[in-house]
Amino acid sequence: MVQNPMPTLYTHPMSTFAQRIHIALREKKVEWTPAVVDMAKGAHKAAEYLAINPYGRVPTLEDGAMRVCESTAILEYLEERHPEPPLMPADPVGRAQMRMHVKLCDLEFAGRVGTIIFPKRFLPRERWDQARMDAAKAGIERHLAILDTHLATRTFLAGEIFTQAEVAYAPFLLFLPLMEIEPPEHVREWATELLARSSVVETRPADAPDWPYG
Amino acid sequence: MVQNPMPTLYTHPMSTFAQRIHIALREKKVEWTPAVVDMAKGAHKAAEYLAINPYGRVPTLEDGAMRVCESTAILEYLEERHPEPPLMPADPVGRAQMRMHVKLCDLEFAGRVGTIIFPKRFLPRERWDQARMDAAKAGIERHLAILDTHLATRTFLAGEIFTQAEVAYAPFLLFLPLMEIEPPEHVREWATELLARSSVVETRPADAPDWPYG
Repeated sequence: MVQNPMPTLYTHPMSTFAQRIHIALREKKVEWTPAVVDMAKGAHKAAEYLAINPYGRVPTLEDGAMRVCESTAILEYLEERHPEPPLMPADPVGRAQMRMHVKLCDLEFAGRVGTIIFPKRFLPRERWDQARMDAAKAGIERHLAILDTHLATRTFLAGEIFTQAEVAYAPFLLFLPLMEIEPPEHVREWATELLARSSVVETRPADAPDWPYG
Repeated sequence: MVQNPMPTLYTHPMSTFAQRIHIALREKKVEWTPAVVDMAKGAHKAAEYLAINPYGRVPTLEDGAMRVCESTAILEYLEERHPEPPLMPADPVGRAQMRMHVKLCDLEFAGRVGTIIFPKRFLPRERWDQARMDAAKAGIERHLAILDTHLATRTFLAGEIFTQAEVAYAPFLLFLPLMEIEPPEHVREWATELLARSSVVETRPADAPDWPYG
């Protein structure tokens, strides 16, 4: 019997997008080999890593001869390779909802969270673009109000189980306290439950704030 | 025998993101009902449409009781409902590559194209933000150089067939002449082939420029 080698994940323990993959790998109990890209030293922009991912971002997954970049594409790939336990609804309608929410997370939430928390985590205050951060915060609050209406009648975003949509949101929800954003009622309940999940707790970045909304 | 009702697509003939769905529906020979959202008159921001899509964007697909927003989620849903002819590779590795390229299209290309062509198509010149448009153009040129290396050894982005990755790119490639961007060699060959495809030709916005790079 040929043993499949473990997949290698190019990652960083402080990366929000990479945490998505850490969560999914833990949910699915997949063994993997970390290849930490030393982003503080600029290793993600060095020629060696750009040959692996020309956009200089983590995460990148290598599985045998296969290499795939972009966290949402990696989540779908892991689902295909390791379908149990599922992080995806069993029906096409549920999957469509899930993919819509993953996309909306990136378009309406994750990018704006990054605009605020990257400077707050990694840059001295004199380099913050406060006007841009304030605009991002307003956009996040508009999005959370829409999400709150959706979650008023649901436990999870796309049906009855924890899916890739929750995986996509979790690393960014973790930083709501750092952004001084208090989530509306249904978002708060949902976020409190999913942030307490062991796969999320065990993959938290070391500097993630305490969750005061539980 | 119960006849399934046709899906309804909230759309606009000038929308790049909606053209993705027009192409896929034509490739798969799916009958559908258009619901044109009169964006020139602001109908996408009116309460009636915001109740359907709270972000005020087209396309939105309704299929029976199901409603899904975001073009890339709709493409995946159409694939599940109408798998033939496939717009997706048959193997998990190919599908991972396809999803990565769809995502990179949105992150690195489609948004920047919009930054340039929305003003050029719809706004008087005194309202253009030329500095922002120039930065977007530089970003597109960097991305096309990376894509060119990838396409040097391939006919299509993700394997041997025209997939959702090509569907995602086509409506934005159409406007390269308006942006005065001459694509590098392999991108040019690939784009020329896919823009000549009948599903793309027949769904072109009325103001799409001629293609001078064939």
